[in-house]
Amino acid sequence: MRIIIVGFGNLGRGICKAFVEKADFLRKVHGLVPKVVAVADEFGAAVDENGLDLPQLLKTAESYKTVARYRGGRRGKLVLDLIDEVSADLVFELTPTNIKNGEPGLTHIRRAMQAGKHVITSNKGPLVVAFKELDSLARKQGVEFRYSASVGGAVPVIGLAKKLLSANEISEIRGVLNGTTNYILTRMSAEGVPQEIIIREAQELGLAEKDPTLDIDGIDTACKITILANAVLGMNAKLSDVKVVGIRRITPEATRLAQEAGQMIKLVGIARRDLLEVAPKLVPLGHPLAVGGTLNAVTFKLDLAREISITGFGAGPRETSSSLLGDLIDIHRALGG
Amino acid sequence: MRIIIVGFGNLGRGICKAFVEKADFLRKVHGLVPKVVAVADEFGAAVDENGLDLPQLLKTAESYKTVARYRGGRRGKLVLDLIDEVSADLVFELTPTNIKNGEPGLTHIRRAMQAGKHVITSNKGPLVVAFKELDSLARKQGVEFRYSASVGGAVPVIGLAKKLLSANEISEIRGVLNGTTNYILTRMSAEGVPQEIIIREAQELGLAEKDPTLDIDGIDTACKITILANAVLGMNAKLSDVKVVGIRRITPEATRLAQEAGQMIKLVGIARRDLLEVAPKLVPLGHPLAVGGTLNAVTFKLDLAREISITGFGAGPRETSSSLLGDLIDIHRALGG
Repeated sequence: MRIIIVGFGNLGRGICKAFVEKADFLRKVHGLVPKVVAVADEFGAAVDENGLDLPQLLKTAESYKTVARYRGGRRGKLVLDLIDEVSADLVFELTPTNIKNGEPGLTHIRRAMQAGKHVITSNKGPLVVAFKELDSLARKQGVEFRYSASVGGAVPVIGLAKKLLSANEISEIRGVLNGTTNYILTRMSAEGVPQEIIIREAQELGLAEKDPTLDIDGIDTACKITILANAVLGMNAKLSDVKVVGIRRITPEATRLAQEAGQMIKLVGIARRDLLEVAPKLVPLGHPLAVGGTLNAVTFKLDLAREISITGFGAGPRETSSSLLGDLIDIHRALGG
Repeated sequence: MRIIIVGFGNLGRGICKAFVEKADFLRKVHGLVPKVVAVADEFGAAVDENGLDLPQLLKTAESYKTVARYRGGRRGKLVLDLIDEVSADLVFELTPTNIKNGEPGLTHIRRAMQAGKHVITSNKGPLVVAFKELDSLARKQGVEFRYSASVGGAVPVIGLAKKLLSANEISEIRGVLNGTTNYILTRMSAEGVPQEIIIREAQELGLAEKDPTLDIDGIDTACKITILANAVLGMNAKLSDVKVVGIRRITPEATRLAQEAGQMIKLVGIARRDLLEVAPKLVPLGHPLAVGGTLNAVTFKLDLAREISITGFGAGPRETSSSLLGDLIDIHRALGG
């Protein structure tokens, strides 16, 4: 399979590392030989119709902060040209999330589909801004479109709903979908330390962004709830439809009182046909949503199976490559591979 | 899709109730119209090439304890004749588990495959006795073979591993796979009551069999570990390869001491390439396997995603119909439906 990767931050590098590490496994178990023919980052691009040398590409990106320094690489805004002109089957769109207008990811995905290329993305922006449009465009163009990594990181939340719970009507999805806030709440509860101090430490550990607003204020979780509402419940939801309260007002005292009552305070996202909400909620100890640290967890309410919950790591480039690579294998299978 | 159901206990009736209740959903959402053309139980059979009247069939089975009393029904051992002679696409094999030789389920499944019919089963017996044979026979005959309901009840354990974690190498599967023992251990821990008393109450509530030996002694869990080893890890495991210790020696005192140390005692099954084991283990509170009541839970250890866990109801005819019907939808899709 001939692949273009757009965006070469942690996730782009993570999937390339997985291609290198798991080349034998992919070929032997799945009959899949991924060949990366072009990679673009914000500064430039590297192209080789015969397949880039991935270990060399990774070394170049680490050393020079851009793939443009790979042999024969070029500087400049080259993404759309690559998407249009390089012969490839599939585009990984892995640029940073922009929830205002979805750009530049939205344009990348549209152009890739228009060029007849399958698309895999982790990018919440385009999905929040234009889910229906992209879903329809993929059908119209006859290309595959997957976005497992956009919700739950390594946890296959969307796949579980679409592929394994298909006998059920899903009445509600409830999830702890943001590892950063879950880490903060877990430590507040365990140590009684104020939020600001834990946020600072989390930033030093790389567990929180320099500007943690989107996490702390519940916007990241609201994006994921919007995606689940559209992709799983078949709604036509916008981010502004989600009632959002973040965790800023949660004090160590509140987490302590909850724990004394056998409960944990979690930032919970809820998607139901009559309600889209993100807010801190009490969850009983022992409930599948009462997960600690940076874990994510999702519970589906179902007419036959009653409740099914899934838990795992919601972030990290290596963990998330499980979802990105899973989508690639799924497309490979869908194409008869 | 034309369907034969063999075995009409709780699960057989459960799937028929789901066909009735969800007829609109299956047709509209999945384009699937299941037509049950024959049903056999231990006393006889009901056949209608144009499709049985399921509400009438269910009423008959409730009133007379056999489908032989359905209009035109016949008494006698008719299963193999039905499988060979009735025109159908698929056989549900739902007779009781026999772990000694897998019969009569094993013969039913073989004959169905030889007759070119797809097979869905919940029956652990044939899978424990002859997994490789049946897996090969299905391939040779070009028929689909699914057995999601044999492990985890409503929890799609096998599907998760095979369809959604495909990018990963699975190094270990760990599971709480028997609802009866989990119910007993949960109540012992909460109430400090001896095992024998809780078993008697569980029997009255229908949560334990008249002879609970297979559950209590860990054999049921060992069957599920054998199936997971074969179906997910690609091993060639037999039931006798599993080291098994049940929960008979666990006292209320032991559960109390565990709880004081922030742990729960669970009957845990482990499948690894170098170890197949069932035994009571300590599980920390807050771990995904620390589920209470009749819940089941499974954790996969993975090279990319690290750990993914799934939880839900491991028994109950309505819950299990989620897996049986899920398998049917999956086959319908695999056939291009």
